[in-house]
Amino acid sequence: MVFSSKLIEDAVNEFAGLPGIGKKTALRMVLHLLKKDVADVDAFTGAIAKMRHEIKFCKSCHNVSDNELCEICANKGRNHAQVCVVENIRDVIAIESTQQYNGLYHLLGGILSPLDGIGPEQLNIATLHDRVAQQGVEELIMALSPTIEGDTTVYYIARQMKDLSVSITTIARGIAFGGELEYADEMTLARSIAKRLPIENYVSMKG
Amino acid sequence: MVFSSKLIEDAVNEFAGLPGIGKKTALRMVLHLLKKDVADVDAFTGAIAKMRHEIKFCKSCHNVSDNELCEICANKGRNHAQVCVVENIRDVIAIESTQQYNGLYHLLGGILSPLDGIGPEQLNIATLHDRVAQQGVEELIMALSPTIEGDTTVYYIARQMKDLSVSITTIARGIAFGGELEYADEMTLARSIAKRLPIENYVSMKG
Repeated sequence: MVFSSKLIEDAVNEFAGLPGIGKKTALRMVLHLLKKDVADVDAFTGAIAKMRHEIKFCKSCHNVSDNELCEICANKGRNHAQVCVVENIRDVIAIESTQQYNGLYHLLGGILSPLDGIGPEQLNIATLHDRVAQQGVEELIMALSPTIEGDTTVYYIARQMKDLSVSITTIARGIAFGGELEYADEMTLARSIAKRLPIENYVSMKG
Repeated sequence: MVFSSKLIEDAVNEFAGLPGIGKKTALRMVLHLLKKDVADVDAFTGAIAKMRHEIKFCKSCHNVSDNELCEICANKGRNHAQVCVVENIRDVIAIESTQQYNGLYHLLGGILSPLDGIGPEQLNIATLHDRVAQQGVEELIMALSPTIEGDTTVYYIARQMKDLSVSITTIARGIAFGGELEYADEMTLARSIAKRLPIENYVSMKG
């Protein structure tokens, strides 16, 4: 693309550096901002700059936070004896959006993946152990990806917690609500049969 | 989506205000910027703020410009007797990217569309007349959308220029290179037969 303005070109290149944004979409965004009031564009750039400059990571659960302790960890109304172990921020947002979980979180920052050079030291596992040992955590709910790496991470963490009296659970795997049996993969289908539930539980799950 | 950080939430909402960007994509962009160095994010917000604050519109052709006169109008190596009339910046970028056109442009800022309340006063037609009258323009190449509104605009402008000795042409319509005849719409196909070219022209067009 040939631009006749360096200002436009620079802005397009910056947008095109975002994931999944090509030059044409970047140009559309720049032309959109060009039509907006200066004050609106200042609000746009201001919110992003403020976010990057002021964001902190919660010293307890490692979630992104506006303060030393994140809103969730600081909330006395939540169940501090329950900690849901997840990979990253995206998982927290997904679970929070269900509005069904009232415990805390612990963000590992990834999962064990020796091929990618991610061992236990690269993850927030030591701080999880400290939390469980010192803060009266009674249950760790493992909510990791249902992959070999995810399962390995679950087993590794379970072994690390052996000396502590904490119960470890994992979120249920199975056929999604509305999912068609014939399209489910074999492993999920097999596990959902093995871990079948009495009908009363099914009714209460549906709420 | 439920965020546990106001900083993240504000940034996501700003991105989600861009055309074609939903909340999930906005979140992906924010998390991407969160992983970047502060300096990189400052470069991102800086380029956008600078673009919006410093952009000017060329006083001759109305294109976006870094200066009073845009790069194209200021370029003495271009043919100032030829002016291509387009709707907007996007069209200029498309034509410039072909690297085949060496004249100047004139941006109307839209096309005549009475239903949307866009009459001749809303478009840069008076300044086009002045340019032709005062700056020795010999040819106006109309490159507007092949729609009823586009055609109406072409006829309106042609009538406005009647008192001036300027030749008015329109870009060729026809079957696109690589286009399949059977998929062409009837009007395009009919016009491309009516406006058929001697074979020599065809060869020189390809070359």
